[in-house]
Amino acid sequence: MGDYLFPAEPGVRAIARELYGHTRGMPIVSPHGHVDPAMLAGDEPFPDPARLLIVPDHYVTRLLVSQGVAPERLGVARLDGGPVEEDGRAIWRVLAENWHLFRGTPSRLWLELTFREVFGLGDVRLGPETADDVYDAIAGRLAEPGFRPRALFERFGIETLATTESPLDPLEHHDRLAADGWGKRVITTFRPDDVVDMDNPRWADAVRRLGELTGEDTEDYDGYLNALRARREYFKARGATATDHGHPTAGTAELDREDAARMFKRRLNGTVVDGDAELFRGHMLVEFARMSVEDGLVLQLHPGPYRDHDAWLRGGFGANVGGDIPTATEYTRALKPLLDRFGHEPGFRMVVFTLDESAFTRELAPLAGVYPAMYLGAPWWFLDSPEGLRRFRETVTETAGFYNTAGFADDTRAFCSIPVRHQVARRIDAAFLARLVAEDRLPLDEAAQTAADLAYRLPKHVYKL
Amino acid sequence: MGDYLFPAEPGVRAIARELYGHTRGMPIVSPHGHVDPAMLAGDEPFPDPARLLIVPDHYVTRLLVSQGVAPERLGVARLDGGPVEEDGRAIWRVLAENWHLFRGTPSRLWLELTFREVFGLGDVRLGPETADDVYDAIAGRLAEPGFRPRALFERFGIETLATTESPLDPLEHHDRLAADGWGKRVITTFRPDDVVDMDNPRWADAVRRLGELTGEDTEDYDGYLNALRARREYFKARGATATDHGHPTAGTAELDREDAARMFKRRLNGTVVDGDAELFRGHMLVEFARMSVEDGLVLQLHPGPYRDHDAWLRGGFGANVGGDIPTATEYTRALKPLLDRFGHEPGFRMVVFTLDESAFTRELAPLAGVYPAMYLGAPWWFLDSPEGLRRFRETVTETAGFYNTAGFADDTRAFCSIPVRHQVARRIDAAFLARLVAEDRLPLDEAAQTAADLAYRLPKHVYKL
Amino acid sequence: MGDYLFPAEPGVRAIARELYGHTRGMPIVSPHGHVDPAMLAGDEPFPDPARLLIVPDHYVTRLLVSQGVAPERLGVARLDGGPVEEDGRAIWRVLAENWHLFRGTPSRLWLELTFREVFGLGDVRLGPETADDVYDAIAGRLAEPGFRPRALFERFGIETLATTESPLDPLEHHDRLAADGWGKRVITTFRPDDVVDMDNPRWADAVRRLGELTGEDTEDYDGYLNALRARREYFKARGATATDHGHPTAGTAELDREDAARMFKRRLNGTVVDGDAELFRGHMLVEFARMSVEDGLVLQLHPGPYRDHDAWLRGGFGANVGGDIPTATEYTRALKPLLDRFGHEPGFRMVVFTLDESAFTRELAPLAGVYPAMYLGAPWWFLDSPEGLRRFRETVTETAGFYNTAGFADDTRAFCSIPVRHQVARRIDAAFLARLVAEDRLPLDEAAQTAADLAYRLPKHVYKL
Repeated sequence: MGDYLFPAEPGVRAIARELYGHTRGMPIVSPHGHVDPAMLAGDEPFPDPARLLIVPDHYVTRLLVSQGVAPERLGVARLDGGPVEEDGRAIWRVLAENWHLFRGTPSRLWLELTFREVFGLGDVRLGPETADDVYDAIAGRLAEPGFRPRALFERFGIETLATTESPLDPLEHHDRLAADGWGKRVITTFRPDDVVDMDNPRWADAVRRLGELTGEDTEDYDGYLNALRARREYFKARGATATDHGHPTAGTAELDREDAARMFKRRLNGTVVDGDAELFRGHMLVEFARMSVEDGLVLQLHPGPYRDHDAWLRGGFGANVGGDIPTATEYTRALKPLLDRFGHEPGFRMVVFTLDESAFTRELAPLAGVYPAMYLGAPWWFLDSPEGLRRFRETVTETAGFYNTAGFADDTRAFCSIPVRHQVARRIDAAFLARLVAEDRLPLDEAAQTAADLAYRLPKHVYKL
Repeated sequence: MGDYLFPAEPGVRAIARELYGHTRGMPIVSPHGHVDPAMLAGDEPFPDPARLLIVPDHYVTRLLVSQGVAPERLGVARLDGGPVEEDGRAIWRVLAENWHLFRGTPSRLWLELTFREVFGLGDVRLGPETADDVYDAIAGRLAEPGFRPRALFERFGIETLATTESPLDPLEHHDRLAADGWGKRVITTFRPDDVVDMDNPRWADAVRRLGELTGEDTEDYDGYLNALRARREYFKARGATATDHGHPTAGTAELDREDAARMFKRRLNGTVVDGDAELFRGHMLVEFARMSVEDGLVLQLHPGPYRDHDAWLRGGFGANVGGDIPTATEYTRALKPLLDRFGHEPGFRMVVFTLDESAFTRELAPLAGVYPAMYLGAPWWFLDSPEGLRRFRETVTETAGFYNTAGFADDTRAFCSIPVRHQVARRIDAAFLARLVAEDRLPLDEAAQTAADLAYRLPKHVYKL
Repeated sequence: MGDYLFPAEPGVRAIARELYGHTRGMPIVSPHGHVDPAMLAGDEPFPDPARLLIVPDHYVTRLLVSQGVAPERLGVARLDGGPVEEDGRAIWRVLAENWHLFRGTPSRLWLELTFREVFGLGDVRLGPETADDVYDAIAGRLAEPGFRPRALFERFGIETLATTESPLDPLEHHDRLAADGWGKRVITTFRPDDVVDMDNPRWADAVRRLGELTGEDTEDYDGYLNALRARREYFKARGATATDHGHPTAGTAELDREDAARMFKRRLNGTVVDGDAELFRGHMLVEFARMSVEDGLVLQLHPGPYRDHDAWLRGGFGANVGGDIPTATEYTRALKPLLDRFGHEPGFRMVVFTLDESAFTRELAPLAGVYPAMYLGAPWWFLDSPEGLRRFRETVTETAGFYNTAGFADDTRAFCSIPVRHQVARRIDAAFLARLVAEDRLPLDEAAQTAADLAYRLPKHVYKL
């Protein structure tokens, strides 16, 4: 399986293997993701294999749900406190019995690679007959000291891992990590959606807590901006080099200070006006870009998902359990207000992601191919897959080149999958570059340098790591 | 030509050949299509080759029209009763003279395979010089008893063929087929567009006929729903396991009973209100889903075409002669009302099709990858082609897996093309799976099982056959 | 490098090589582009390599700008008359230092091929160390008589080159070319955007100049139409066989004469009404189609770009310097008014382009596959690239065939890149056809004939050359 994901044609495969040889040993830079910093701060042994690899991974649980498996059978807690499977082994067996559902999916690829490369299980195939053996083997490993989070972090060769936190987070885990000398390795990212998004039912409450945390009067719009600036500084002191913004659209807007203040005030007072939330999110993106120009943080934009589309999942099991669905996303008009203002601002960097592939050749590559501030984020979420990664290079490179892309971001909560996700991305990039070499479109030495840039140097550069 | 459609790389080709070997002999399940049941009920010899293979196939006639060939030269009847070519041989010669137009199209592939595999013509190539020979050879075969519809049906290895009828159809041909012991082999499908779509100028008339047919008072909204329920039962008794809905959009809506009744009434009374037709179609989809939960019929949705876009064709030659054009189709918001209500309803199944490929990774695979009720229909119409089938697997599998897709549906009126269309789909699936095997993404035995599932077991399961 | 762009699999590669052998020596037909006719009329030696290959090529400058290179360092003149690099060698060195940015882009491919095939430089690789050598070698060639524009035109094997001019252009260069016997080789194209687009701030002025030029009263709508007819005749007399229309959308509309006249009048009088400009553009497309039916000119439509999206570039350096960005483009509804009127009009031809690939299978191939008047333009602008050309054939052919496409159009200002751009297109078509042959979907002899049709016969036929 050493050649997996490489093209079958022997000549191209040989080139891909050679190119991958240049990047497979490079350190991992993970500039965007959702690993829980408490895990690394506490450095406790992981729980059982199911709680590590299934329960929190909504890529895995959603596909099982799609075939009628009840989430509670997978250990996903019900909001009403109803019964939920507690036995890790029983959860594991559900996965094993339904393993065929994962044929052709990245989840299967990541899990199999994790079994083999992280837990050293060899070429075992999951299934009802092998479920218990695999479970026991992984559980055995998890009991060893070498499988605690920090030991794995070192073994994975991670140089920098960015987590993602709300401005309301005290970042205590990052402080503990810093005290242990891990401050440069595990850094935070400033993600202010909960204090920005008026559609969030707890927005007003979050804004008030932001005031308490900073001593600013966040009932006042200027105080609100000052509070955000203060928290950005607080995050920077915990290693943050970037912010992140998860919005329903890519809309940006530049409102008059007075209009923004009025909008802010009326919503705090409970007045809901149609369109305010969207306009205010867009306006705040421009404000955050302005703050980035001042403090140097890189602005990431993740637009497009319809959050908690699945009302049954949301109602029974809460938010963020796999029920989000992408929507068509417009960028050309949406980003213009922000780009008009800061698209050529020296030192300002914005990394834009998409869940809508049709935008790659039509909007995103052309935008990144002219505005110095703009970089294209890696294929994300449903697109973080061998075919998705391949199509990204095939559609983006010709207009934006390689150097307006930001390198791979694993964007994951699944800590153990980090090395194998980066491996998959590096292999697909090697395969794409190998085709360019085989078709005489790029000399081999330049392809090798490009592979290394994509795997390591570009994300460090773009994210200022 | 035994390896046609398989990838050229010898290693992958060998795997594809082996995988296809597992499915080539499997029975054909055709869960959705438009074959005329009268043909199988009457079992008369087919008319001449042109009337069998050209005149009724708008894939063929539209491409000839696009290069200026007048439809009447192809035997397509004018609405004004003007002159039309009656001589099958003359029509055939027009196709032969323009055969180059079909290079690279699935129509050419299907026709050539039909010549060879159904009519045993060998590797003859159509053209002006061979036109008469091919015509005579096919005409000769059509005169043989072994080329009557039922004999071909048996020879094609069709296990189940679903036709598509209006609720107003008496289904007399299905009754005759049942009387002959063919009731399980040729089943109907309930397609109520003509009594649902207020944009149809004959809608009110159709609703009244629905009342006459069922004895319900269809001037009344509740009577209308009862009449539909009654016809569904009638269709179920003629083998139907599914309904089908051809709408301009994927919009669904849940109206109050009173609002729906008011809308229904005013349109029956001749009052046209902008937006009523779209809203009522969407509302009725939710009502049909509710009926499906009760009676178990699988709900198929075919959204997206702009029907009879070509006014010249529509005006001169009538509806459904090849002048439909797809439009961009939104699913995430459109399907939410229906999925909110029935997306997790046990036993309810909905098969959703598209003519808009951009929705595959963005909306359709994510939706099918979480809602148990939802399955993805096969590439349809303009997408039922080697490249379209390939892109479907490449874009859908990683997020939805194979088991949230519904298997191949030929969707054809062209009876003689059924085996070769299924063959093309099976070959493309074999080729896709072979690549997964060659890239070490799926073991060979699982690929073989998947190929068989896609070809036979999945459509039987999804469509409850 | 003789096999560049051909697939790596040896069997397919051999077929591609053979197919390309049939087209590589064929004359070049360039039915749409933006070469400056003054260059060919004057036949002066080209300036230095940078002014020939970098300064006017916004594909090149925009990618350098996207990484922070100031346009004035590339010799792009500032509107404010500020300092700009005058030294061609210094400009050239900026490109050489940033050559890695172009990895995987068509710009690099075109430039390398131009170095090698036009200037005979061998396999030299551009970079800081080789920059001066390459510059000197090209500069040396440019001083030779054989590298003057007309000599290159002959050497390139160009049979016909169409330039693009405004109706306000006196076409003096075309007159001079005609006087020198080059009238059939270099022809003009009628592009009336500046006198049609009311969003153009100089529209009213342009309309008045149109009146002066023709002696028609263009304050009056009928006079305006007559003036346009007169200029079309003037252009036809200078070889024009086509018109071209660059619009933000594909919208067409048929207004009453009175409504159009009223709209025209009020805008001339300075009254701006929201929506007028878009509606008038759409209406004029139908009017131009009507004129095409009368005078036989082929109508080209290039819709979709957001012109001068980059306000910083527009403000500092003017229009058309690389700051345009595509937008999603709808065709099915947009083109219906025009197609309703003229879609089946004998002799009328319309070539439709797109920057939105999602429209290929969904709208454009279906439209071209039924309306005799409609042909699909070649992949254009950001899509004129190896991957873009490949995807065009993969997505369009199955529904529209090859013969509803219009052949390759280089659409370039970069004269020296014309032969290599056509070479790239011919190679990609050969590669696509080779795959069809290798997968037994098309016999080799028909593939060879198709390759020749795409390279030469089709553009001559469609554009009436």
